[in-house]
Amino acid sequence: MLTIAVDAMGGDNAPACVIEGTIQALKEGGNKFEVVLIGQAEIVEPMLAREETDGLNLRFLHAPEVVTMDDVPATAVKTKQNSSLVRGLHLCKTKEADAFVSAGNTGAQMAASLFVLGRLPGVLRPTIYAYFPRLQEEGLTNIVDVGANVDCKPENLLQFAEMLSIYQKYAAGIEQPQVGLLNIGEEEGKGSDTLKQAYNLLKEADGHGKINFIGNIEGHDILKGKATIVVCDGLVGNTILKFGESIPEFLGTLFKRALGSTVASGGMDEKTAAVTTAMFKGMFKSFDVEEVGGVPFLGVDGISIVGHGRSSSRAIKNMIFMAGHMIERKVNQHIAEVLSGQ
Amino acid sequence: MLTIAVDAMGGDNAPACVIEGTIQALKEGGNKFEVVLIGQAEIVEPMLAREETDGLNLRFLHAPEVVTMDDVPATAVKTKQNSSLVRGLHLCKTKEADAFVSAGNTGAQMAASLFVLGRLPGVLRPTIYAYFPRLQEEGLTNIVDVGANVDCKPENLLQFAEMLSIYQKYAAGIEQPQVGLLNIGEEEGKGSDTLKQAYNLLKEADGHGKINFIGNIEGHDILKGKATIVVCDGLVGNTILKFGESIPEFLGTLFKRALGSTVASGGMDEKTAAVTTAMFKGMFKSFDVEEVGGVPFLGVDGISIVGHGRSSSRAIKNMIFMAGHMIERKVNQHIAEVLSGQ
Repeated sequence: MLTIAVDAMGGDNAPACVIEGTIQALKEGGNKFEVVLIGQAEIVEPMLAREETDGLNLRFLHAPEVVTMDDVPATAVKTKQNSSLVRGLHLCKTKEADAFVSAGNTGAQMAASLFVLGRLPGVLRPTIYAYFPRLQEEGLTNIVDVGANVDCKPENLLQFAEMLSIYQKYAAGIEQPQVGLLNIGEEEGKGSDTLKQAYNLLKEADGHGKINFIGNIEGHDILKGKATIVVCDGLVGNTILKFGESIPEFLGTLFKRALGSTVASGGMDEKTAAVTTAMFKGMFKSFDVEEVGGVPFLGVDGISIVGHGRSSSRAIKNMIFMAGHMIERKVNQHIAEVLSGQ
Repeated sequence: MLTIAVDAMGGDNAPACVIEGTIQALKEGGNKFEVVLIGQAEIVEPMLAREETDGLNLRFLHAPEVVTMDDVPATAVKTKQNSSLVRGLHLCKTKEADAFVSAGNTGAQMAASLFVLGRLPGVLRPTIYAYFPRLQEEGLTNIVDVGANVDCKPENLLQFAEMLSIYQKYAAGIEQPQVGLLNIGEEEGKGSDTLKQAYNLLKEADGHGKINFIGNIEGHDILKGKATIVVCDGLVGNTILKFGESIPEFLGTLFKRALGSTVASGGMDEKTAAVTTAMFKGMFKSFDVEEVGGVPFLGVDGISIVGHGRSSSRAIKNMIFMAGHMIERKVNQHIAEVLSGQ
């Protein structure tokens, strides 16, 4: 039976949301796997006691320390060895668990995952991606890297494309995800030396059937959904991700102002304003992709699923399922095979 | 009297929009400056003949060639010496004109401006910025660079901040524009080596009173308006610019779908749907900042105002006024003084 370690202390709404999501996952998943919930006993155990967990494959493991959002990623792994984060990853390292799931400090989770689990054979640098809504009804646009690697060599960009293509194929069932290289123009030969070299490497990998490279794409192609996988360095990806996350609030404010003046001028009554507001809010559901789940930290020798701090219980549940899929479909073995050229 | 050279052939709606905008500028500007409209005589002259131009300080100059959107920027300046673009810039070089305005091929205009006009003393690399709407009622967020410089050294990022601060001060009247360095986190020490070094240079420049540096900012701070000037390399800026430009279309599509299903389910009648649509469109006016005007290519030894291909006649008019302001307020002299350390 698979064992998934879950960080009870990670996330804005932890541990309540994490406990709830874990129980949902076990119930919906038909109890086919086991969850080890890790956290501070004095906080988590009383909450667990209030839940109906009889018959569920749920164990609790005490970890006296907590990595907070304020902890410096690079040092948390060393200074907080007894945290739920580091303990959970050690369970994976020692094969007591098959995967680790957390919605805590993303930087600390990436640093600790790399430190504790190490890299898969052939992987130069593990990476993290994010997904965006897109105009095409089906699927999402996946951007890689979004902050794990600020400076990237062409070889790193190539590997990001390869790893995410493998993940999309085996875990998400997308056979030949289109890969686009984010650039300042579509034409071949655009951009910096790094981008030009990355273009050549991606084209070569496409020639070998490793990826499905469609060429350079631009910022306006992300929401259009021209590519399933958008490759860029971590500064570009992180900026686009955070810019995108700020759009609902920005437009929500513009909407309130516009609605207020429309109602004030007699252009709309209060009842219609309420209908319009509900409709407007519904439009932004597709932006709140973080609610759906997390993403795996690709390239580490183990499974470490990273969730957004705002993760709901549904997101936690989906992250646990995601971990299960990655194990069952042997995503890491496929990555190691392709990247180490075996 | 100031002379402003205007590219009649540049822009999606050229020459009609350009002619219209030029005439508006001369009329509204009280005929205080002269415009030399440059383009193909067989196309522009018949259109000009249909307008009332008596008494306006308007001259026409024939240029047999046209730089199109398909022309490769780096070669257009050499292969199309008799284009309105290159002739207009040569008028500036020979001091027959004080400024050049175009809404044509941006890349070609930047390359030709650099080639014909050269750089101001002390400037390592000229730059181009773009503006974004923001939640703060007043002002815009200005992002620099947005595509002229894909690879940037720390010194380049510093100069972009200095040049745009000077421009905002002298041309836009913003005394101490806040400068933020776009990074993956707010804390000092974040990001690549280039960003870390740029941070130190910006801090030093702030210490010398040259700029008003507020530190690192992130992608979500752009629309919030945390800084008036956002400094980043051209790949990041270009991607954010194009991503931002794609938002109205993306949300327009989501809106149509949502409105369609709300009306279909009886949640809203057709009349209210029309009011809601008008309100929604109004919200996006702030996104269409390109309509307002263009931006100067900062750091070249002359004034070259770059407009969006979609520029309206109003945008052309505002670009002509912008050129006038830059000349009157001696923006380039100030840039040269500060950047050459005089």
